[in-house]
Amino acid sequence: MFAIDLNSDIGESFGVYKIGSDEKLINYITSANIACGLHAGDPIVMNNTILIAKNHNVSIGAHPSYPDLQGFGRRNMILSVEEIEYFVLYQLGALYAFCRSNNVELKHVKAHGALYNMASKDINIAIAVANAVKKFDDKLIFVGLSNSKLIEAGERFGLKTAREIFADRMYDENGFLVSRKISGSVIDNIDLVIERAINMIKYQKATSINGKIINIKGDTICIHGDNPKAKDLVEYLREAFKRNNIDILPLSEIIK
Amino acid sequence: MFAIDLNSDIGESFGVYKIGSDEKLINYITSANIACGLHAGDPIVMNNTILIAKNHNVSIGAHPSYPDLQGFGRRNMILSVEEIEYFVLYQLGALYAFCRSNNVELKHVKAHGALYNMASKDINIAIAVANAVKKFDDKLIFVGLSNSKLIEAGERFGLKTAREIFADRMYDENGFLVSRKISGSVIDNIDLVIERAINMIKYQKATSINGKIINIKGDTICIHGDNPKAKDLVEYLREAFKRNNIDILPLSEIIK
Amino acid sequence: MFAIDLNSDIGESFGVYKIGSDEKLINYITSANIACGLHAGDPIVMNNTILIAKNHNVSIGAHPSYPDLQGFGRRNMILSVEEIEYFVLYQLGALYAFCRSNNVELKHVKAHGALYNMASKDINIAIAVANAVKKFDDKLIFVGLSNSKLIEAGERFGLKTAREIFADRMYDENGFLVSRKISGSVIDNIDLVIERAINMIKYQKATSINGKIINIKGDTICIHGDNPKAKDLVEYLREAFKRNNIDILPLSEIIK
Amino acid sequence: MFAIDLNSDIGESFGVYKIGSDEKLINYITSANIACGLHAGDPIVMNNTILIAKNHNVSIGAHPSYPDLQGFGRRNMILSVEEIEYFVLYQLGALYAFCRSNNVELKHVKAHGALYNMASKDINIAIAVANAVKKFDDKLIFVGLSNSKLIEAGERFGLKTAREIFADRMYDENGFLVSRKISGSVIDNIDLVIERAINMIKYQKATSINGKIINIKGDTICIHGDNPKAKDLVEYLREAFKRNNIDILPLSEIIK
Repeated sequence: MFAIDLNSDIGESFGVYKIGSDEKLINYITSANIACGLHAGDPIVMNNTILIAKNHNVSIGAHPSYPDLQGFGRRNMILSVEEIEYFVLYQLGALYAFCRSNNVELKHVKAHGALYNMASKDINIAIAVANAVKKFDDKLIFVGLSNSKLIEAGERFGLKTAREIFADRMYDENGFLVSRKISGSVIDNIDLVIERAINMIKYQKATSINGKIINIKGDTICIHGDNPKAKDLVEYLREAFKRNNIDILPLSEIIK
Repeated sequence: MFAIDLNSDIGESFGVYKIGSDEKLINYITSANIACGLHAGDPIVMNNTILIAKNHNVSIGAHPSYPDLQGFGRRNMILSVEEIEYFVLYQLGALYAFCRSNNVELKHVKAHGALYNMASKDINIAIAVANAVKKFDDKLIFVGLSNSKLIEAGERFGLKTAREIFADRMYDENGFLVSRKISGSVIDNIDLVIERAINMIKYQKATSINGKIINIKGDTICIHGDNPKAKDLVEYLREAFKRNNIDILPLSEIIK
Repeated sequence: MFAIDLNSDIGESFGVYKIGSDEKLINYITSANIACGLHAGDPIVMNNTILIAKNHNVSIGAHPSYPDLQGFGRRNMILSVEEIEYFVLYQLGALYAFCRSNNVELKHVKAHGALYNMASKDINIAIAVANAVKKFDDKLIFVGLSNSKLIEAGERFGLKTAREIFADRMYDENGFLVSRKISGSVIDNIDLVIERAINMIKYQKATSINGKIINIKGDTICIHGDNPKAKDLVEYLREAFKRNNIDILPLSEIIK
Repeated sequence: MFAIDLNSDIGESFGVYKIGSDEKLINYITSANIACGLHAGDPIVMNNTILIAKNHNVSIGAHPSYPDLQGFGRRNMILSVEEIEYFVLYQLGALYAFCRSNNVELKHVKAHGALYNMASKDINIAIAVANAVKKFDDKLIFVGLSNSKLIEAGERFGLKTAREIFADRMYDENGFLVSRKISGSVIDNIDLVIERAINMIKYQKATSINGKIINIKGDTICIHGDNPKAKDLVEYLREAFKRNNIDILPLSEIIK
């Protein structure tokens, strides 16, 4: 009856620099967002990551970013909408090359970091990203923050959209994520995270940071890999989903 | 009876930096080798260049390079064959994205600068490039220096290969290009350039720098765009080809 | 009685990419702002540009930028104040190395593009830039837009500040530059540019875009080099300054 | 009677990417070679690393590299000697800025990775590096592989040179380092490493990989930080040096 995808950002190493524990995390997720070389990843890392995902039968997506290696794609940059569209296209193609050479399909796209955040709030940026995806392959699933401009843009362009929810983050009463800089915005209590996840999936409801009940739909939950507790959290989440008859499925079986 | 393709490297601007005169040159050529962002080109330049080529009905190819923007891809770098293969794949995919989004086909691949030169002499580098092309799309035409390891690698991998000849450059008696640093290696006399071009195309012969007759087959001639005399040269060449019943055709009509 | 410095941004080529006509422009200016490798310039270009300035006895300054080669430092980026301070320090040191190796003094600092514009309006960014300059060498002249936060920050840190004025740009009634995107903000009429320059220097007054008389002090005028009419303009300006008994002097003789 | 410096490469993190354990290693060494942003390090990392070294009273040196972040400066690149000289100058200045702003002296220079290795064998590259150092500050100590072209170039330019020795690496009978790729070239046995270190320092002798006794002088030993056993090794080395009356001193007290 209920189903959810578990997505995670992987392939974010660069040259000799290793980050994340992709080989472990891959066992727990159903969709992988793979860095495309502009905030992280390089051609060797990209190829290896595609192989890891393929070998674990995890659905593969592109994770395009602003061009900002030193800032890991987390710094806001003011690019024109044309620049954004073409930078996303560039990265979709680059990652697609490794899918194609390894005989595996590219299934979805999720913007990274500052691009994701800025596009969530600014319809013109969201349209630039959606436009790139539509022009490259209109069958790709377009992942965006639930309730955000990304989802609005994806729907406007007729893309299959997937709503991303964050079980370990607080929302405000309008359904927007509360900035990490605000005290109390990140939820550490694993039981509470699990409870929130279940409620969002089964009842499409969450309690906002100021105590209101808000509506929120979710097709995929973001699993953070760079956290020492990440493995515990995802194991507990998977058990809780099982107890609650929530299937864990890749996006392509949820969004049709 | 006789046919030749005219290819040129275009799309080598970057950001505010303009190089070449792509809009003029495009009128004289049948194949465009388009920079993919690692020695020149950026996503905006790549998209614009694809459009210029498409609008002039010029065949589009990828022009992958070592990652070396500051050296314009002309500096020798020692990369592993895996790195070379994956860097070429990355660039093929990136350029392909702009072909796909603009509904135009990617037809060929020609390595750039130091990668082209090193691959011409080193079969392992040539194989790395050919491998990337084969894995990405084995119907792409693989352009390499006539008589070089690139052609050998392309044939070994069963790719359609196109032999590139240089009418304005001297060859040694083994059919290799003489380095530009050697006096007399670059031919300035337009009449001599034309005569050499005709002889290479009709008789598959050239006179080497030390006066020997060598065998050399050519499917495509490289037209340099960064030269003030380039426009004159290509006009004279086209007239001479017409007088000699040599058709000027895109690679895809020469290599089948 | 009256004196003004003429400054220009030079050394903005990169690798094979040439921009500006530094060898000509250098004859008309008294201060050169030299790119430091992050928006333009590379070590070879930097060394050559230092030599050109030294040979023409033009005062040398650093022209630090956000790290953004593809955007030529013109794209707004949101960096922390620590990042800004350390990026400026990095660039000051890099340019200083070429001054030191060529036995010529580094005299001033002027931020480039988006960094200059954002620092003009945001006191925290302005302080980050001033802080870097003060820590590196508190005898450097700190150039900023007249009436801007850059001048405020420089004065707060006890730096020698130089007010930059733009004779070919409109100001609003608060003394801020009107964005280039606003119609009428750039003045093409050379006579009007000259008249405005004279008035700003002699009477410290200008007429704002909406017709008010504003106060504006200037120690240096920005001469744009990337404009075909630039050479004419600077020649006419120099003649007009001569007729009006305005000395053209390097900053170090104006700011003491 | 005897004295040796212990040097290590630190400050090789970049953006979010952490590498090495600088805070621990700094307790065991007397000289720090700090990355300058072209193979590793960024302005924030550079400033932090300078502070760590200063706080531990460790002597600070620049660790310039080929421009190759993705390859961590370990890939051979063919640059002109002018490019090498100016790239080294650029990096010396950049690191110097953080020394100056933190009121600490820059004491030495040691080339990194492929630049170090290529300069060790090629006198022209070694001269380019030495030339940059001499032009920037001829009082800097110039560190190079013992018996190599770097030492020859440094002496030819009248620089204070420091000979670097590797206790955990085999030499050939000509006193050159045997490539890591050769089996037996890296010595894992800590006791043997210590014995070799003592012999090189006290008797200026080592046994080559093929069993010959070679002459080798050393002023500084390279301590690798990226090895889990590194901390053990350096502790044992320090104890052994104490037992053998070998003082551990910064380069500036050894090379005068």
